[in-house]
Amino acid sequence: MAGDGSDQRALQYEQTLMYGRYTQELGVYAKEEAARLRESGQRRSVRDRSRTLDLLEYDKGRCAKCRICTVRCQKFLISRVGEDWIFLILLGLLMALVSWVVDFCIAICLQAQKWMYGGLDSNVFLQYLAWVTYPVVLITFSAGFTQILAPQAVGSGIPEMKTILRGVVLKEYLTFKTFVAKVIGLTCALGSGMPLGKEGPFVHIASLCAALLSKFMSLFGGIYENESRNIEMLAAACAVGVGCCFAAPIGGVLFSIEVTSTFFAVRNYWRGFFAATFSAFIFRVLAVWNRDEETITALFKTRFRLDFPFDLQELPAFAVIGIASGFGGALFVYLNRLIVQFMRKQKVINKFLMKKRLLYPALVTLVLSTLTFPPGFGQFMAGKLTQKEALVTLLDNRTWAKQGIAEEFDYIGNAQAWRHPQVNVFVTLVLFIVMKFWMSALAITIPVPSGAFMPVFVIGAAFGRLVGESMAAWFPDGIHTDGTIYPIVPGGYAVVGAAALSGAVTHTVSTAVIVFELTGQISHILPVMIAVILANAVAQSLQPSLYDSIIRIKKLPYLPELGWGHHEKYNIRVEDIMVRDVRYITLNCCYRDLHNVLLTGQLKTLALVESAESMILLGSIERAQLQSLLSQQLGRARRLQYIRERAVEEKKRLSIVSNPASDDNGSQRTSQEVRFQISTEESSFSPTRPVPHKPLKPALKRPSVVERPTELPTSPHDHSGIALKNLFCSSPDAEALEDDGDVEDDMTIREIAEWEERQLDEQVNFNNCKIDPAPFQLVERTSLHKTHTIFSLLGLDHAYVTSIGRLIGVVSLKELRKAIEGSVTVKGVKVRPPLASFRDSGTSSSENETTELHKLWDRHKSMSLPRKSTPSESEEKSQ
Amino acid sequence: MAGDGSDQRALQYEQTLMYGRYTQELGVYAKEEAARLRESGQRRSVRDRSRTLDLLEYDKGRCAKCRICTVRCQKFLISRVGEDWIFLILLGLLMALVSWVVDFCIAICLQAQKWMYGGLDSNVFLQYLAWVTYPVVLITFSAGFTQILAPQAVGSGIPEMKTILRGVVLKEYLTFKTFVAKVIGLTCALGSGMPLGKEGPFVHIASLCAALLSKFMSLFGGIYENESRNIEMLAAACAVGVGCCFAAPIGGVLFSIEVTSTFFAVRNYWRGFFAATFSAFIFRVLAVWNRDEETITALFKTRFRLDFPFDLQELPAFAVIGIASGFGGALFVYLNRLIVQFMRKQKVINKFLMKKRLLYPALVTLVLSTLTFPPGFGQFMAGKLTQKEALVTLLDNRTWAKQGIAEEFDYIGNAQAWRHPQVNVFVTLVLFIVMKFWMSALAITIPVPSGAFMPVFVIGAAFGRLVGESMAAWFPDGIHTDGTIYPIVPGGYAVVGAAALSGAVTHTVSTAVIVFELTGQISHILPVMIAVILANAVAQSLQPSLYDSIIRIKKLPYLPELGWGHHEKYNIRVEDIMVRDVRYITLNCCYRDLHNVLLTGQLKTLALVESAESMILLGSIERAQLQSLLSQQLGRARRLQYIRERAVEEKKRLSIVSNPASDDNGSQRTSQEVRFQISTEESSFSPTRPVPHKPLKPALKRPSVVERPTELPTSPHDHSGIALKNLFCSSPDAEALEDDGDVEDDMTIREIAEWEERQLDEQVNFNNCKIDPAPFQLVERTSLHKTHTIFSLLGLDHAYVTSIGRLIGVVSLKELRKAIEGSVTVKGVKVRPPLASFRDSGTSSSENETTELHKLWDRHKSMSLPRKSTPSESEEKSQ
Repeated sequence: MAGDGSDQRALQYEQTLMYGRYTQELGVYAKEEAARLRESGQRRSVRDRSRTLDLLEYDKGRCAKCRICTVRCQKFLISRVGEDWIFLILLGLLMALVSWVVDFCIAICLQAQKWMYGGLDSNVFLQYLAWVTYPVVLITFSAGFTQILAPQAVGSGIPEMKTILRGVVLKEYLTFKTFVAKVIGLTCALGSGMPLGKEGPFVHIASLCAALLSKFMSLFGGIYENESRNIEMLAAACAVGVGCCFAAPIGGVLFSIEVTSTFFAVRNYWRGFFAATFSAFIFRVLAVWNRDEETITALFKTRFRLDFPFDLQELPAFAVIGIASGFGGALFVYLNRLIVQFMRKQKVINKFLMKKRLLYPALVTLVLSTLTFPPGFGQFMAGKLTQKEALVTLLDNRTWAKQGIAEEFDYIGNAQAWRHPQVNVFVTLVLFIVMKFWMSALAITIPVPSGAFMPVFVIGAAFGRLVGESMAAWFPDGIHTDGTIYPIVPGGYAVVGAAALSGAVTHTVSTAVIVFELTGQISHILPVMIAVILANAVAQSLQPSLYDSIIRIKKLPYLPELGWGHHEKYNIRVEDIMVRDVRYITLNCCYRDLHNVLLTGQLKTLALVESAESMILLGSIERAQLQSLLSQQLGRARRLQYIRERAVEEKKRLSIVSNPASDDNGSQRTSQEVRFQISTEESSFSPTRPVPHKPLKPALKRPSVVERPTELPTSPHDHSGIALKNLFCSSPDAEALEDDGDVEDDMTIREIAEWEERQLDEQVNFNNCKIDPAPFQLVERTSLHKTHTIFSLLGLDHAYVTSIGRLIGVVSLKELRKAIEGSVTVKGVKVRPPLASFRDSGTSSSENETTELHKLWDRHKSMSLPRKSTPSESEEKSQ
Repeated sequence: MAGDGSDQRALQYEQTLMYGRYTQELGVYAKEEAARLRESGQRRSVRDRSRTLDLLEYDKGRCAKCRICTVRCQKFLISRVGEDWIFLILLGLLMALVSWVVDFCIAICLQAQKWMYGGLDSNVFLQYLAWVTYPVVLITFSAGFTQILAPQAVGSGIPEMKTILRGVVLKEYLTFKTFVAKVIGLTCALGSGMPLGKEGPFVHIASLCAALLSKFMSLFGGIYENESRNIEMLAAACAVGVGCCFAAPIGGVLFSIEVTSTFFAVRNYWRGFFAATFSAFIFRVLAVWNRDEETITALFKTRFRLDFPFDLQELPAFAVIGIASGFGGALFVYLNRLIVQFMRKQKVINKFLMKKRLLYPALVTLVLSTLTFPPGFGQFMAGKLTQKEALVTLLDNRTWAKQGIAEEFDYIGNAQAWRHPQVNVFVTLVLFIVMKFWMSALAITIPVPSGAFMPVFVIGAAFGRLVGESMAAWFPDGIHTDGTIYPIVPGGYAVVGAAALSGAVTHTVSTAVIVFELTGQISHILPVMIAVILANAVAQSLQPSLYDSIIRIKKLPYLPELGWGHHEKYNIRVEDIMVRDVRYITLNCCYRDLHNVLLTGQLKTLALVESAESMILLGSIERAQLQSLLSQQLGRARRLQYIRERAVEEKKRLSIVSNPASDDNGSQRTSQEVRFQISTEESSFSPTRPVPHKPLKPALKRPSVVERPTELPTSPHDHSGIALKNLFCSSPDAEALEDDGDVEDDMTIREIAEWEERQLDEQVNFNNCKIDPAPFQLVERTSLHKTHTIFSLLGLDHAYVTSIGRLIGVVSLKELRKAIEGSVTVKGVKVRPPLASFRDSGTSSSENETTELHKLWDRHKSMSLPRKSTPSESEEKSQ
């Protein structure tokens, strides 16, 4: 496992460049990879040996043995580096440090704002200026910095990670630049005190960390170049991201699974748990070492009573919280999308904002911070509390509204912010919820790195608190009737509300676990679970999750989930949604066919069939491969060779004419002539033309050739130079280039056109072409449900539909998406794709298939020996 | 979605019968299913219409409208029944009731034993008799009952569920009989007080419930016949099983995922959570209604302090618990396997036990209960405590060994059992751990429905307690140095130990979550997670999980997991492990080939290729299909028809002879004769032989035909009667049976043999044969890692290895298992399959492939028009 750095770095680079390349195209990629590995392996072993020899040479006589031993130890250590757990520990450590540093910086930023605001309490206007300017500057800086360094760092990052884990490689999403932009941008954005979260960005940051770490570790060799391993590590990284953000290892793993995966490999489970636990541990240990805490405890520790957390009769209230949160979550997603679409549609605003990119963030921040200004409107909505402080007060286990006499209770510390001399605490809570709701939906549209989880979480907690306080006011002595009085704990309601609303917005159940880990108490498990499940049920039937909504807005390549218990998905078949007009090339096609196919379609891969009649699927070829085949066939190197050969031919002909007695030569000549005539037909007659000394010009640049495909590369060597060189290490291509000097391109434009016409009529030689020999195949009867499963499991881009080896259609992500959205989005109404009705109308498809098989079979019969048939059999057939 | 009960019941029955049928054979099954659904749909609609008409007829003049409305409402309600959530609620409710009733019965049983034991305290011998007889009777009854009713109810059930969820349908594992046997057997087994658990059986019981409920619901129609849906529901049921057993919904879902799935569909997540939460809720509500508890709380509630659960410096102790538990877990699995293998190998014991099946359970129970007899050895190991009581005392938050002066502390209630006047509490704990360890490993080999989770959990808790008490004795004032004294909480150690040991035995991380839900406290999350992960790391590198071990012992069809971070799996390729000698049939083969293929191999499916030269894979055919084809070709019906035709022929010939002038007839005759001659060659000459009146005897029963395949059914109608009838509704077969009377089987044995020889030479007609048109294909370069992924994702049994359409090998579960076990089991040593070395030795396979493609291409070239070739091209090729 010794290193071979430069190669692997190049490989990594190539992988990063593969924008939109779907990872599961088994054949082509596997083959490339295998060849590369083998090659590099051989090279490596040679290099290793020579290195050892060098060492031996150098240290001859000295402690050679010692040296060899050191080299071996080094090798052993380096091979250990390849172990997963070392990678995961490093990742966890790194992310814990990043999380802690970011938190520390955010805390300093927020303290600074408070200090400024507090110091200027003599003048309200100055106070306002300080309160407003600070966040505006920070957000503007964050937006500008991100915009300049890496625009892809904007937003949450979870939608992108979902797409990446689906198998699509998004360009530039996992680079060092993005990492820097995301970390600094996030720190500034959260330091401004806007209602933004750090969870989503942390998923992205952790993935960035994993990708960079993987790149770094690959310097030491090992298995870091394996793509499926990298995807596994990215999945673990997502768990680490959530885990070290909330110090919630279990919730982190589950949340990251729910949010980013469609199918989860249980064997990756431990990776996530291991890394997330380690990360959460380090994150909390840092707090202990920094003397913030005495020991490792939960981030938002609660102290509800353990013996009687809630009464059975309170459960309806919890259910109400769940259902209301479901509606609220759907509304939040809808509102957020509405804002984005409004901003996009308003062309005047849009034009203006496009010019001054930083104006939008600044404006939004100005409005939001003005509204929270504590002496202003902020006094009615606890505006002076930071997100964290608000959450701590909301989860408090004391009741604020005691028997309606709110004054009796002494609000200590931050809880005071909720009290207003004139206004009831209920009004404050309602205002807080309503204002924060639209403010958060608006804030997450600011183009800075930011998440939505935490703001939603706080709003949910406030809503829960509101219900809890109402219950406490309604039943001052608790609901429990016999024996002891157990007063209602509004803090428990806040916990339930927080889990329910964040679950509804993200469409996850694991927010429940996150809540337990955040509060350090699991006593409310049943209410939380009930509320979260109800919230999910409501929200999922109304709107997509926030992340799916963003995926749609950003138009990322995705595959929507199948909804809750839709029966139709079992009744729609692949044959209803597949494209029947498949682009294909046959094994014995000529270059002209290739050319035409390349001209007409834009598909990335083309099917290779045996022949147009049999339509037996043999494999699929990438478009780029075909393009390189074509450009090679028409390339200058080949033309030069043709010229050289023509010259040789000419020479020979002359020599034969001068020496006609040679029998051997004569027969050879005849055969050559015949072949020559067959291949070139009418244009092999002017070999003795004078050579016009014109400047050399690549044939492909001439505009006179009409049938030149538009998407063909202008220069074949620019486009596929490396691939061609790799493929033709000992091909005439290279030789032709070498002895370029002794032949001259003496063909006229007309000659070249003729030559190219001839070239196009030749049969394609697929010998050196990379073919995916086993593209994924489906049957026309496969249900949509199963197709969806297979597509998401294997991360497919397209699959061919075959029937007994015959290609009859193709299904791509696009068709699948359409079919699913058709059947899923409109709930209650049974939407069937237009072709589905064909199935019911009489023609049984099993009949169809029989007929087709019959055809195939008959074809074979005709090809094979005349068949023996008894009269009985012929009768059988006629029936 | 109106019902069509009888059909679907039949279908269900068939599905249950499909032992060993892999569910993912897309083609064949999908087609059958589709045809059936269409058929039943048509029939249903016809029936519905006629029913409505009937109703209209009947109620003419009366409130016809009202009736129709009722019918519609009914239909609507019935269609709602198909919704997943109704199913899940019913399942949850049912399982909660079952769980509660079982718990209740177990409690009564245990109380009865205590009461008997307590009542006889005057005489130790009588006490002993009561103490011992009671469990022996119960266990013997349980074993006998299970043995008689449903032997597959024995054991945990998790290994079987893992296999079923993998796609294999195990015969009789999901029937009502098994359900009854499992529930009653489990109740008796646990009521005996043996160290057995209820978790594993509950997973099985929940799955049984789901399967039966599904069967029941399918009476109302809907989508209950869909197989992939049923698998989804079974996965949810497993979660319910764990959830309602421990009242741990989250842990239940996670544990069931880890234990039963390889790949988990995140879209099923909510199903598990929904059902498990509902079930756990009902389970706990029942306890409240029964006045056992005041409100819903955890099952084994702990009361550790919240503010300072543990010190950072205690973490090494927790890590030690984790590592030791890892070794302990591996030892437990090993010990359990050792016992089973020992019992199997000892032929004398084995023979004796086979005769008296109930002796082994009785003997084991006798030994175990003797050892726990409280006045005897039981006094040193808290023998009088039931499992539940022991766990409660172990999780107690008071310290037993206070500053070494154990006497100072007043052991109240059950905790008293741990105190012994002469012996230290440490000795008691050590004895408890050691004794329970082997006793549990032995107890779970008793053939009764029982699990191992709970006993292991208790042992783990005891081990944790031991470490905790030691720590408390070592640091009487706690470790924390500055400020307040926080004494060590041994109960916390017990929690950590329980999670770690059960995690190590089952190879799961989610035992951590189960522990939190069981105790109702999450404050020890970090120690628990650290210990569980360490325990898993150690145990997974030493032994398979208990369930995998049982799978191996029972030889269930399984696919082992890939281990932790083995690099080799990326380097082994399909070509290294595949079987190159594939059994195939060609499209134009004759029945003799079919016959030979069927004779030689035992594979369940056979590849269908275009021809032996091209080897292009067209599909796969099930063995049974081929057998029915063959038996049909050689069947009596066909022979009778042949006789009839011969007679007609004879008649015609006679008529032609009598009327030779007819020109039309003459030409027809000639052509018929020619065909006749071709097909039958030498034996069509004796049609006018006298008819010997012999008793009819099915041809296939004669022993004289040597080449009769052994596995062919003795009577074709017995074996494939239904299939044939289905396939040939209007075929001559049926007709021949109908007019059986007018032809007589007048052929001699020799004639029949000749006729059969002729039949065997005919070309196979695949027209009515069910072919899977798209069997799964791999490329030879696919890595073992990816192959494993695909196999476990799609639940494959075998996959063909193709190269550009050509079949070059086949990989089945067996090869894959061998390869994985070869590379995984022996850790540290790099094991490569024998063929792997071929890859490195010079022959680059990309060359190989090129050559093969070349061949294919050349073949085509020769078939197509003579190719035009330029001299340049021929030169290129020669290089």
